[in-house]
Amino acid sequence: MKIGKQTFLFNNVYLQTGASVVGTKEGEGPLKDYFDLILKDDKWCEDSFEKAERKMFKEALELAKNKANLTNEQVDMIFGGDLLNQIISASFASREMDTVFFGLYGACSTICESILLASCMVDGGFANNVLCAASSHFSSAERQYRFPLEYGSSPTPTSQWTVTGAGASVISDKPSNIKIVAGTAGKIIDLGIKDANNMGAAMAPAAADTISTFLRETDTQPEDYDLILTGDLGLFGKELMIKLMADKGYDISSVYNDCGCMIFYKDQTAPMGASGCGCAATVFNGAVRQDMEDNKVKNVLLAATGAMLSPVSSFQGESIPGISYAINFRRV
Amino acid sequence: MKIGKQTFLFNNVYLQTGASVVGTKEGEGPLKDYFDLILKDDKWCEDSFEKAERKMFKEALELAKNKANLTNEQVDMIFGGDLLNQIISASFASREMDTVFFGLYGACSTICESILLASCMVDGGFANNVLCAASSHFSSAERQYRFPLEYGSSPTPTSQWTVTGAGASVISDKPSNIKIVAGTAGKIIDLGIKDANNMGAAMAPAAADTISTFLRETDTQPEDYDLILTGDLGLFGKELMIKLMADKGYDISSVYNDCGCMIFYKDQTAPMGASGCGCAATVFNGAVRQDMEDNKVKNVLLAATGAMLSPVSSFQGESIPGISYAINFRRV
Repeated sequence: MKIGKQTFLFNNVYLQTGASVVGTKEGEGPLKDYFDLILKDDKWCEDSFEKAERKMFKEALELAKNKANLTNEQVDMIFGGDLLNQIISASFASREMDTVFFGLYGACSTICESILLASCMVDGGFANNVLCAASSHFSSAERQYRFPLEYGSSPTPTSQWTVTGAGASVISDKPSNIKIVAGTAGKIIDLGIKDANNMGAAMAPAAADTISTFLRETDTQPEDYDLILTGDLGLFGKELMIKLMADKGYDISSVYNDCGCMIFYKDQTAPMGASGCGCAATVFNGAVRQDMEDNKVKNVLLAATGAMLSPVSSFQGESIPGISYAINFRRV
Repeated sequence: MKIGKQTFLFNNVYLQTGASVVGTKEGEGPLKDYFDLILKDDKWCEDSFEKAERKMFKEALELAKNKANLTNEQVDMIFGGDLLNQIISASFASREMDTVFFGLYGACSTICESILLASCMVDGGFANNVLCAASSHFSSAERQYRFPLEYGSSPTPTSQWTVTGAGASVISDKPSNIKIVAGTAGKIIDLGIKDANNMGAAMAPAAADTISTFLRETDTQPEDYDLILTGDLGLFGKELMIKLMADKGYDISSVYNDCGCMIFYKDQTAPMGASGCGCAATVFNGAVRQDMEDNKVKNVLLAATGAMLSPVSSFQGESIPGISYAINFRRV
């Protein structure tokens, strides 16, 4: 059911389970005990980083499917995407699943874009079980968006570290103890930021727009949530986000965190935190989902955030449009 | 409502209208009288082909919205995508619409992927009016997938010509004279074809899989349709498609055509016909929709087809996965 202009309420949609596969660096971070699989080598026995990313995507799908006790036949569809051109991780990984596939591109917001559409499909009676997944890989993303690792280029002070990881969620009409209550779809928001090494600043306005719209259209307040979580704004973007929300009349500071600030220790060579499709996908499906299962947090608003730029658009002098989709998960 | 494994029936979904913007070459082809806008110059006063593509996308959205007499406020959401990396045509064009945006990547199947998801959103009660759009541009696609035009490289005998064009559809719950009756979502199908200059052969198996699934799950036969239309298989792919369907027990030859074989005259330097996201998007929204309005064809099955490759996947020796989504439009 649609309420307001951008928000949907769901009657009968549940998060069955989730799965996460991460790289070596992520596996040494503070959330390491939450992940289903930690790679010993970021190439994972493949001959390219792209193929390793695809393998992670496939493994996340398989793990999620198996944890939910579903056969391929019982999976109605996959919604998925990733950061690589033409979403080759998602489409190649989904080849062997013999299941309907919807390819998405929402940059780092993809996991929430997919869960939102999957929830609509389940609530609308078009599917019973949907797999949602997203991935990124530090080394394939560096090569595509910046420089191949072999060039040895240095990160700028505001740049974030792309997470090597894939996360998958199983969305279903079968009751579980995590209900998907509502979601808000995002608009493209562009305040004119052009620094492709400062994604947090480019994406924070989109997150603030979507989260404030969600709160307004559901008539709730930040304190109604145990956790409001953005995808990958990083340290700088997180600070900005708190300010942008304050400007809109919401004090989120006591319940707010960002996946990009959670996955690494501060001394893990990523001063501004993490980013990438795999960031929210693994932090949510790994850690937050488990904390909800364990009844440590009950009411969570997850808003993954995407920067819809390309190297070509940046070269041509364009600013960076951002987008964010929010999902409200509730422990029942 | 879901019937079978991949097919949905819709109760109350209509195609309100559609719009098309095409380049100069397309505007000299056999369908020229159907298009809403024909560019006089493929750069359209912009300083890059990418920006011209984006402008076409935006114009197609605006034209479709205006033809349907909708304000921005009345448009609930946009589903869109294109061939450029990170779908910059769709996302940048949607910036100023101030509307919910869902970015898709289905390669040249995108217009059908978007109409199928939009139909689910409308039928499920999550939206009243949805804009669906897709675009491609010969010159931006050549630069990204093959070589910049300035290199003067020659096409191979089996290659197709990427359509310069953008098409948009308005999907709505308000009754019109074209009803969207049903749709079938596709699986990723990969028979191991590796020649990136022979997309028709790579995509035909996906089209055959989706169309035969549609016919089986709706319990209909090819002769029940006035027109079965694939997206951009081209001349070689069209022949292959007829054979693949015959292998599955369906003779489609008398009702079958391919948008990629319709948009150019044979002497327009595109021996194998056309391809690109803009191909099915403009041929359907321009010509086929108009013929339905004029009651010349009543029952149409449109199955746009996408090749989910990237230059990187081809360089790394991968085959080309294809996908196709089918939509059944009926004149009422």
